[in-house]
Amino acid sequence: MKKKFAIVIAGCGVYDGAEIHEVVMSMQAVLKHGGEYQLFAPDVKQHHVVNHLTGAEMPETRNVLVEAARIARGKIKPLSALNTDEFDALILPGGFGVAKNLSNFAFAGAECIVNAELEQAVLSMVKLKKPIGALCISPAIIAGILPGAMVTIGKDSSDSQAIEKMGAKHTATGHGEVIIDSNYKLATTPCYMLDATILQIAQGADNVVKALLELM
Amino acid sequence: MKKKFAIVIAGCGVYDGAEIHEVVMSMQAVLKHGGEYQLFAPDVKQHHVVNHLTGAEMPETRNVLVEAARIARGKIKPLSALNTDEFDALILPGGFGVAKNLSNFAFAGAECIVNAELEQAVLSMVKLKKPIGALCISPAIIAGILPGAMVTIGKDSSDSQAIEKMGAKHTATGHGEVIIDSNYKLATTPCYMLDATILQIAQGADNVVKALLELM
Repeated sequence: MKKKFAIVIAGCGVYDGAEIHEVVMSMQAVLKHGGEYQLFAPDVKQHHVVNHLTGAEMPETRNVLVEAARIARGKIKPLSALNTDEFDALILPGGFGVAKNLSNFAFAGAECIVNAELEQAVLSMVKLKKPIGALCISPAIIAGILPGAMVTIGKDSSDSQAIEKMGAKHTATGHGEVIIDSNYKLATTPCYMLDATILQIAQGADNVVKALLELM
Repeated sequence: MKKKFAIVIAGCGVYDGAEIHEVVMSMQAVLKHGGEYQLFAPDVKQHHVVNHLTGAEMPETRNVLVEAARIARGKIKPLSALNTDEFDALILPGGFGVAKNLSNFAFAGAECIVNAELEQAVLSMVKLKKPIGALCISPAIIAGILPGAMVTIGKDSSDSQAIEKMGAKHTATGHGEVIIDSNYKLATTPCYMLDATILQIAQGADNVVKALLELM
């Protein structure tokens, strides 16, 4: 039986949604290690729309699920449809959308509120003793849900301070390094929280998927 | 000296822009084989905007370069800035955007008109005897520019008939197979013109990059 991975993404594009390379490399890593995946995204309005060429905000509104469907080639489900009984692991790739659409970490830091559907999914996975992988900034959201979680987002920074303020433990890491929390069954890695090439992103995603398989 | 690849993309999303997996896997393949890349896209309005969840057209306008910048994390240049003297190879990933934004092949078939900047770039690469790789539907555009080109878009179909009508030679292929035209120095592969997994896309992109290095 193939192991089933739920991948939850936050839109389509690093500055207002999901980090595209991290999502694609997570998908690649799951298949490479013999698993299968289903993508999910919340059916909510994006916090805002960013012109990725200039960095300026655009006078538009976009929907997280509809934009996330671009990376998924349409094969994506609303996060409300995620039944944790049907999956062996959960993966959260990064991108600013995680801190803007899946939570308000980008604005509220340690006082952030996490999307209720995502929070429920994470708590349910923990209850079922199923592992969770988180890339880039996503470990901050995990820290906001799971008291005392051990995670990494790469270098020590104001973001890692916010993570510790939420009661989690941050460990600084380099490219492709994975921090394992065997209590909560978490595997986290920095990806684009560090300056990175796409090969380093692929390596980080690969190492997280391998860790998740070992934690199952 | 690292070999330099110009990657020209048609937006962000398979149904109205660039096929995201094909772009990301092309980037991965270039780095994996020791090269470096620069992304380009035309600064033009998308033909239309498609809701990738439902397939319906959306009442919006988007710019190809601005949306392509999502895959590029902002590191992309307008196609008008592509100087073929500075590159060793050109790669065209696929997606409907190639047939809607970089040309009108989706609507005009064999009578298609190709974006003038792209046509100029392709003709210039041929003149300089530098190789061109094309994935998915992009070989159809090559066929529209280079008389008698030998290409593949996978299975024989109405699209491959249009390619032959333009005077090119189409060869049916399976996953990851590459057709080489040593006259024009072309390497083409079907990718998502066939039902494919993301691993098969990675393999196709990898094989095209290897072929381009051999054609240099």
